[in-house]
Amino acid sequence: MHTNKTIDLPDHIKYENTELTIDNVSAVELIKEYGTPLFVISEKQVRQNYNRLRKAFSRYPDCTIAYSYKTNYLPAVCNILHHEGAGAEVVSAFELLLAKKLGMPSSKIIFNGPGKSDKEIEMFIGDDIALVNADSMEELERINQIAKAKGKIVDVGIRVKPDVPDFFVCPKFGMDIATGQAFKAYQKASELKNLNVVGMHAHIGTKICSTRSYTEGIRQMAKLMSKVNAELGIEFEFFDIGGGFGVPSFTPLFPTEEKVESTATIEQFGESIVEAFLSCISDYNLSEPTLVLELGRIIITDPALILTMVEGTKVIGGSTKTVVVDAGVNLIMFAPYYYHRIVPVVNTERAKEAVDVYGPLCMQMDVLGVNRKLPVLVRGFFLAILDAGAYSISLSQQFIRPRPPVVMVNGGRKRLVRRGETFDDIFNLNSV
Amino acid sequence: MHTNKTIDLPDHIKYENTELTIDNVSAVELIKEYGTPLFVISEKQVRQNYNRLRKAFSRYPDCTIAYSYKTNYLPAVCNILHHEGAGAEVVSAFELLLAKKLGMPSSKIIFNGPGKSDKEIEMFIGDDIALVNADSMEELERINQIAKAKGKIVDVGIRVKPDVPDFFVCPKFGMDIATGQAFKAYQKASELKNLNVVGMHAHIGTKICSTRSYTEGIRQMAKLMSKVNAELGIEFEFFDIGGGFGVPSFTPLFPTEEKVESTATIEQFGESIVEAFLSCISDYNLSEPTLVLELGRIIITDPALILTMVEGTKVIGGSTKTVVVDAGVNLIMFAPYYYHRIVPVVNTERAKEAVDVYGPLCMQMDVLGVNRKLPVLVRGFFLAILDAGAYSISLSQQFIRPRPPVVMVNGGRKRLVRRGETFDDIFNLNSV
Repeated sequence: MHTNKTIDLPDHIKYENTELTIDNVSAVELIKEYGTPLFVISEKQVRQNYNRLRKAFSRYPDCTIAYSYKTNYLPAVCNILHHEGAGAEVVSAFELLLAKKLGMPSSKIIFNGPGKSDKEIEMFIGDDIALVNADSMEELERINQIAKAKGKIVDVGIRVKPDVPDFFVCPKFGMDIATGQAFKAYQKASELKNLNVVGMHAHIGTKICSTRSYTEGIRQMAKLMSKVNAELGIEFEFFDIGGGFGVPSFTPLFPTEEKVESTATIEQFGESIVEAFLSCISDYNLSEPTLVLELGRIIITDPALILTMVEGTKVIGGSTKTVVVDAGVNLIMFAPYYYHRIVPVVNTERAKEAVDVYGPLCMQMDVLGVNRKLPVLVRGFFLAILDAGAYSISLSQQFIRPRPPVVMVNGGRKRLVRRGETFDDIFNLNSV
Repeated sequence: MHTNKTIDLPDHIKYENTELTIDNVSAVELIKEYGTPLFVISEKQVRQNYNRLRKAFSRYPDCTIAYSYKTNYLPAVCNILHHEGAGAEVVSAFELLLAKKLGMPSSKIIFNGPGKSDKEIEMFIGDDIALVNADSMEELERINQIAKAKGKIVDVGIRVKPDVPDFFVCPKFGMDIATGQAFKAYQKASELKNLNVVGMHAHIGTKICSTRSYTEGIRQMAKLMSKVNAELGIEFEFFDIGGGFGVPSFTPLFPTEEKVESTATIEQFGESIVEAFLSCISDYNLSEPTLVLELGRIIITDPALILTMVEGTKVIGGSTKTVVVDAGVNLIMFAPYYYHRIVPVVNTERAKEAVDVYGPLCMQMDVLGVNRKLPVLVRGFFLAILDAGAYSISLSQQFIRPRPPVVMVNGGRKRLVRRGETFDDIFNLNSV
């Protein structure tokens, strides 16, 4: 079960007197205007996280950070990141269309995914996007066929699977380096006349806390690159190591304390990865490809929180006090599996007690936090569930209740970036 | 992991020559018209499941079956069940509003939930709905206050927790019988002047495979009823044992083979529950309250399936062949945890092989079936994922791809009951 932790608030969240503010906007005022539950995102913190990342990787001169749309595809979020210079990592026609509508040039879009449809392949071939990472032999052949039919030559990368300690990715993704499958894919691709092989891609998993798996994975990829270059004459423009950086506020579901002491910082990820990559470039005599990172969680987790109201409390003989709030796993699906900081909106001097915090759904898995020390709560008190930006809105459900609005705050100002759903929004697709 | 099973198809699904039909509608024709992925629901099977339930409980003359909206709140599904005579079990204002829009009389609506908002309580008090099951002392008091302010007296039940073997419900739900907490709640409620206590409610969990937990729970509830009646003079109109019946096609996540030999049939649930209840009525001298059942999963699981296309296949050295299809956990969230039958849309005489079936999402948990024997699959083949009606559409996500249409079939006819989403449906709530 989750343990209690010391709660350090991120920079943009403060108490002014006793009231929580998000980038100088009062949480109480936001609740008065929009009610609960409510998503609030700090624009400043989104920008800051992105720029920390840029800086952390700046020692390598040619580094592209592509924002992983699926993590949180709110147009307002994607837009801010694009204005800061981020590219887009998309995995469907829907996400590609969004990137285009937001004005992203094709040259800054990367397309991934284990099950690309013909229609999707046609879209990106027509679009000349920066890099398509093929996930299987079948996909390489299919991209080639469609490119041929269109009379185009397409730049592709190939998704490979290095063998690293933290690696856990199901077999639908990529091609194995160790068994020689990945090399065979390059061989195959080099024979297909409408493909121009320019990249290598890997994504070693998600919520990786240490830098070690990246540095080991990079070495295996660089070795394969060198072999592919020497034997097949392929020149690499892109070295794409995916995403998966863990964030400090998350505790893994099965914490392996002896293996992972703490989560690496953005700066530590940057330093170790660039160091490992530069050393591989030198050892394997690579021609300095663009280093591509596909990141979402580490950018968007802590800028967002959910404001929620206590709907009721209950004590069952012998068990911890139960608190039911009006935001649940309908809004933040993975909450039961991770550690989300939960803080009061009004931080009074009331005594604290340990409580279990549940959402309002008629579902057993609807648990937000266990054994949390919070000021004695009664109905009507407000809480903020922090670290709520990643895989929340994009996985949210129209389950039991319509989905709430999303407000973006910035230096004391606020704006509604997604309005709350109405009954009609949900049912206007239906007929009986 | 899931084991392979003999696949017996439900009555409404057949092969005509080699092609799958759903209630005499060709799956191939549906795919031609609507594409994949596609939800298909058999109206006949919905009606049949409901009527089997009615019949199974008919030995008790006063039995109400309330359909659990959250399981699948498609208006077309709710509507069919209401036409057959089912009531509505709702857990939010959103669901209450839907029931009203579908023309349900208030007298056939039951309202549950562990976190009812003031607004929701106001709505149902204004509406004189059949039964409100209060979940905590706090809620009893709050319902009383709001009823008082409106000058109304409200019929309420109280959600209690019996102590039964299969019971696993988190502490946010109901009040404990064993510790005396449930009796205290009745005591409290009987003192509140704007409440008229008329019911007892329990919901012992979900996917319960044996009848034993129900029969034991019923005895504990009946004993409490008798005590409440004798000591507090409360007359019970409703004995509400919730839902939770397992369905045969599901394997529990942690199967306890020695405890549960197989899932009880609808008829076995009916016989055992009615038998136990009649015997309690006699033993505890109860005045024959209405027996209420709140069921969803057992009604709507097998009428629905998802038609999906193989996007690609892959073999990694030593592991089972991987098949990626175009429907994933975005459409059927709990698929990785249960056994969904998967059958080919065209059942050729091709040799069979064992495959792992994955959805198209860039997520590791996106697994639909492991080690399934299917005709050798290549890209473009179609599969049907059966048992897909419960907790699928109501938990579906706008993740990576828009959500697909839903077609209802009936005796060779078909109608679109929910159109597929467009890009604009998803983004029209947003601004940047």
